[in-house]
Amino acid sequence: MIPQANSMSTATPRPPFFLGVDLGGTNIKAGVVDDNGRPLSWAAPDGRTQSCVEIATEAEKGPEHGIQRICQAAREAVANVGLTLNDIQAVGVGSPGPMDLEAQIIINPYNLPGWLNLPLAKRVGESLGLRSVLQNDANAAAFGEFWAGVGRGRRSLVQFTLGTGIGCGIVVDGKLLEGRHSHGAECGHIRIDVRPDARLNNTGLRGSLEAYASATGVTARAREALQKSDEPSALRDVEGGGGKLTSKTIFNAAKEGDALATRIVDETAFYLAVGAVNLMHTIDPDVVVFSGGMINAGDFLLEKIRKYVVENALPVPGEKTLVAFAQLGTDAGFIGAAGCARSSFATSASSPTSTTARAP
Amino acid sequence: MIPQANSMSTATPRPPFFLGVDLGGTNIKAGVVDDNGRPLSWAAPDGRTQSCVEIATEAEKGPEHGIQRICQAAREAVANVGLTLNDIQAVGVGSPGPMDLEAQIIINPYNLPGWLNLPLAKRVGESLGLRSVLQNDANAAAFGEFWAGVGRGRRSLVQFTLGTGIGCGIVVDGKLLEGRHSHGAECGHIRIDVRPDARLNNTGLRGSLEAYASATGVTARAREALQKSDEPSALRDVEGGGGKLTSKTIFNAAKEGDALATRIVDETAFYLAVGAVNLMHTIDPDVVVFSGGMINAGDFLLEKIRKYVVENALPVPGEKTLVAFAQLGTDAGFIGAAGCARSSFATSASSPTSTTARAP
Repeated sequence: MIPQANSMSTATPRPPFFLGVDLGGTNIKAGVVDDNGRPLSWAAPDGRTQSCVEIATEAEKGPEHGIQRICQAAREAVANVGLTLNDIQAVGVGSPGPMDLEAQIIINPYNLPGWLNLPLAKRVGESLGLRSVLQNDANAAAFGEFWAGVGRGRRSLVQFTLGTGIGCGIVVDGKLLEGRHSHGAECGHIRIDVRPDARLNNTGLRGSLEAYASATGVTARAREALQKSDEPSALRDVEGGGGKLTSKTIFNAAKEGDALATRIVDETAFYLAVGAVNLMHTIDPDVVVFSGGMINAGDFLLEKIRKYVVENALPVPGEKTLVAFAQLGTDAGFIGAAGCARSSFATSASSPTSTTARAP
Repeated sequence: MIPQANSMSTATPRPPFFLGVDLGGTNIKAGVVDDNGRPLSWAAPDGRTQSCVEIATEAEKGPEHGIQRICQAAREAVANVGLTLNDIQAVGVGSPGPMDLEAQIIINPYNLPGWLNLPLAKRVGESLGLRSVLQNDANAAAFGEFWAGVGRGRRSLVQFTLGTGIGCGIVVDGKLLEGRHSHGAECGHIRIDVRPDARLNNTGLRGSLEAYASATGVTARAREALQKSDEPSALRDVEGGGGKLTSKTIFNAAKEGDALATRIVDETAFYLAVGAVNLMHTIDPDVVVFSGGMINAGDFLLEKIRKYVVENALPVPGEKTLVAFAQLGTDAGFIGAAGCARSSFATSASSPTSTTARAP
């Protein structure tokens, strides 16, 4: 069986091959990626093309069980594309933080309760007989977009992943910016509002970007706007009608012309633009990328962000920096984790390099 | 004549030697720096030890005259330490921006009117017969502190230079972060206030760090506070008494217990801490450094900044990042420019490296 490289089904996958694992509190994704950043795919029983195995993490059953689950998903992914572990060069594992990248351990991730001070990638690598590298999940996703998505062929990238919080990853000259204390690219926590009563996020910090522009922040601001006035709004009926107020319902209402929802979306675009501009005035990358469920709003959101970027940036970065939405969707995590393994271990990889090599 | 390495007068200067030039709108500083980041010094006619030549830029006389002035200062600096240009490995020139570092030209610096699209360092190097490299002045100063000041022996540093505006330089893994469009580390322009009526700076951008915490911003906030109330304050008499309201008079009044001045200083420390924290949550460096005239306020200011940093940062960077004042004073610019020349050209230099090598 000859594996197929996804999204370019006519192209023959280019060895060496790398395993990428995207570990979340709910699900594990594992896939095999070729030397060109293309996931290998297979036809599922229902005929659909698949490029990764996705199974439940069952995080509450503890880290030993979790490591078994990761290895199970990884072995299935390799088998599904007709390869064996002998064909795999190395494995990369993206995990929620906080972590110590120098020590290659996760410390105490909020979404993985009880997974304490664990050399996660090392344990997975030992079990699979592969060299391994650990990376922060948002960093891995950014590296995926850099290697194989909107950043392909570029030198530097900043990515914001919009979800419950705002994750971030930064690539400069082909390398992930990990930081001295494994806290590089925690840009969801940059403060954009110095008022003493600025919004709180779940870390207890005030005025952070994610308190305003994460999906949680967007929903909270909409709810407050509804409570503050009697202004008619389609959103007012959502929760009363048994629906749920989410960033998606808010964006949809704005697209249909709802005035209150439109204000919330405009403000969201402005806050996201401030985040982008602050990174442009710090990193000055080729491209600033937004990813996560919120980008399903499409050009409706992207055009607003771009307008506010130009208004708030210095002229040169404002004109020259590409502001774009991610291309790899939820595959960016495992693709980027595989890319980190490639950067750490592949002898044939001339670029990009993300991390220093770690012992097998 | 054997040149003396400054600040370690017992140490023999270690070749190779590098020329560093710090070009400002008002003055030019030029000095010779050894391979260890120590400026070579000499005894001036009045007996004082000097480590650089400082002369007026006379910027209004245009770039050709300015290049001659730079070369004059450089030749004097070399002669004063008993060397000849044959003893110099390369020259680095730090200049105000905006510039195009890839093209190695200054574009149209605000403080150097009429110096347009000029290959400044190349011209200086040709005149002196030396290989040359151009760098942004704030970047060069940060690289000086990284190489030979508070950052010595560290891997990464962020520096804020507090003056009329706020300059910034970022060093990661021993390399200056120049950015894709030569706009890396323009962190005086990061937005920390999203209110529509946030303070303006001289670029027309709203809510930037420098609008709040530069010397100009501090003075403007104090003046507004005086106008807004009848609160008694020593500052109220400064301008009426023929003095001038400056950040220095404000810090001195705060040290003497003046309530209004103390509030201005506290707020300044808070804004500077927000700037530091935003860079800690982006770059996560070993050390965040403040330099410029305002740091003459000493521990009185530094302790306040550190308190607000801990309050506003995530726990790990908040505890582990050194927040410090610069050690090299106004010498950081020419020392760092020399360091950039070393990084670009010295064959013996194993580290740090700041820029890719440029042809002589």
